[in-house]
Amino acid sequence: MTSSSLDEIFGCKLYFKCENFQKAGAFKSRGAVNAIFSLPKVQLMSGVATHSSGNHAQALARAAMIRNIKSYIVMPKSSPKVKVKAVEEYGGEITFCDNNLQSREDTLFSILEKTNAIEVHPYNNSLIIAGQATTAKELYEEHKKLDCILAPVGGGGLLSGTALTTRLISPKTTVIGCEPKQADDAYRSFIKRKLIPQTNPKTIADGLRTSLGDINFSIIINNVDYILTASEKSITMAMRMIWERMKIIIEPSSALPIAVLLENKEYFKDKSVGVIISGGNIDLDNFKW
Amino acid sequence: MTSSSLDEIFGCKLYFKCENFQKAGAFKSRGAVNAIFSLPKVQLMSGVATHSSGNHAQALARAAMIRNIKSYIVMPKSSPKVKVKAVEEYGGEITFCDNNLQSREDTLFSILEKTNAIEVHPYNNSLIIAGQATTAKELYEEHKKLDCILAPVGGGGLLSGTALTTRLISPKTTVIGCEPKQADDAYRSFIKRKLIPQTNPKTIADGLRTSLGDINFSIIINNVDYILTASEKSITMAMRMIWERMKIIIEPSSALPIAVLLENKEYFKDKSVGVIISGGNIDLDNFKW
Repeated sequence: MTSSSLDEIFGCKLYFKCENFQKAGAFKSRGAVNAIFSLPKVQLMSGVATHSSGNHAQALARAAMIRNIKSYIVMPKSSPKVKVKAVEEYGGEITFCDNNLQSREDTLFSILEKTNAIEVHPYNNSLIIAGQATTAKELYEEHKKLDCILAPVGGGGLLSGTALTTRLISPKTTVIGCEPKQADDAYRSFIKRKLIPQTNPKTIADGLRTSLGDINFSIIINNVDYILTASEKSITMAMRMIWERMKIIIEPSSALPIAVLLENKEYFKDKSVGVIISGGNIDLDNFKW
Repeated sequence: MTSSSLDEIFGCKLYFKCENFQKAGAFKSRGAVNAIFSLPKVQLMSGVATHSSGNHAQALARAAMIRNIKSYIVMPKSSPKVKVKAVEEYGGEITFCDNNLQSREDTLFSILEKTNAIEVHPYNNSLIIAGQATTAKELYEEHKKLDCILAPVGGGGLLSGTALTTRLISPKTTVIGCEPKQADDAYRSFIKRKLIPQTNPKTIADGLRTSLGDINFSIIINNVDYILTASEKSITMAMRMIWERMKIIIEPSSALPIAVLLENKEYFKDKSVGVIISGGNIDLDNFKW
């Protein structure tokens, strides 16, 4: 999509790749489908498993349903009902756990032991990264000459995939990861060139609270040009601009590239900028402007 | 747009024409641009004028700006700030009036007297109808074989245009007007075959509270197959389904076709159905689910 009104506001040409329109509402479907269809069926006899409160849970359950295998999804008790329901509709077998990483990992471990299912990590997995990389590929197929490409960064699956695609098919394009100031482990890791885990993230962008994976980090450090952060205020303002001007529903994590644009207008002036909108799954009941 | 999840829910194939993505956020831009560019420049020397609290105001101001003529817009004092701001951004000269039809007409009359501007009525105007008719034309250009086409009906500009297009290029397609039960003047006029004005409309669908125009009515009575109504509950449910499943922002008036589908699932089963989404202008500050 394009938006003449946003182009005017930012003084540059924006090309949006809208993964909020993707199956299951987010780019995560790409990685999940790629992972599940790349593995030989014999390896998948016992199904797949993951822990996720978010878009990866739905995406993996859906991909498993398409390949006709079982999926086991560990979800924190606090997961939004709408996401639990979506996983159920895709036939995922849900096990609830406590709202912390330890409980998530322990619960997943016991399920893997019991079922022999294969774990499909949401981002720290090469097949997942390869799947997410197709997002930018499709954008370049339509718009060959982008000066920059912007993607949000949480665990790093989308950003590392975007960077790999760019180095392969549009090497001169500047790759910029966009991260909340209040969950800036990727920014700090990038600057220090050393993986620093995220602790105590405080951001509305719920998809970007996780720590960077080590596979993702090694791709990012070698192929991404900059990581820029944005404040919570900019994230909310950016999200609202997209809802109001483009008439599309995006989740807070997807607003990061536009939030970064808001804080760095001069840099992007007169450039052609690819913007990856990562997803549109938001709990309307609990969201207020 | 299409939506496999809505197709599954309704058991039919839906083809959405998304005028929420139209310039100024609604189909009204089509009629306004057509009216202003169809008139000879000499007639437009003194500008154009209308009264509107809604999408026509923005659309006319924008079309006038493009043709470099003045526009005078009478708006009720209660108009949402976001709409007032949009008219101002398009260079429209706003005169505020009281929140009733009499005050709107009186104020407009005095402006027409003073300025010699040409009145461009929001729907009871052949050039406006011809412009709105291009919405369905574009849908048929992509999907030749629609069993039915559904459009909301308020003043009747969009529905009469949709009907004229259908009779010309897809005469076998059933044309269905969709109206709130609580603002059902078109339904009652259609049944009685006599124009009955709307009194005291009570619907969330703010674009559909107006009375049918007489030019619109004569086209509708001769070219529309059915007018079906839907309850407020169905309208809200339909709007939410579209936000959640399609990730697009539509205004309440645009939900009418899906609300009618919700109340008449059997009729539409296995059919291919064109759905005109009329617009996406909604005041996010004042809207809660």
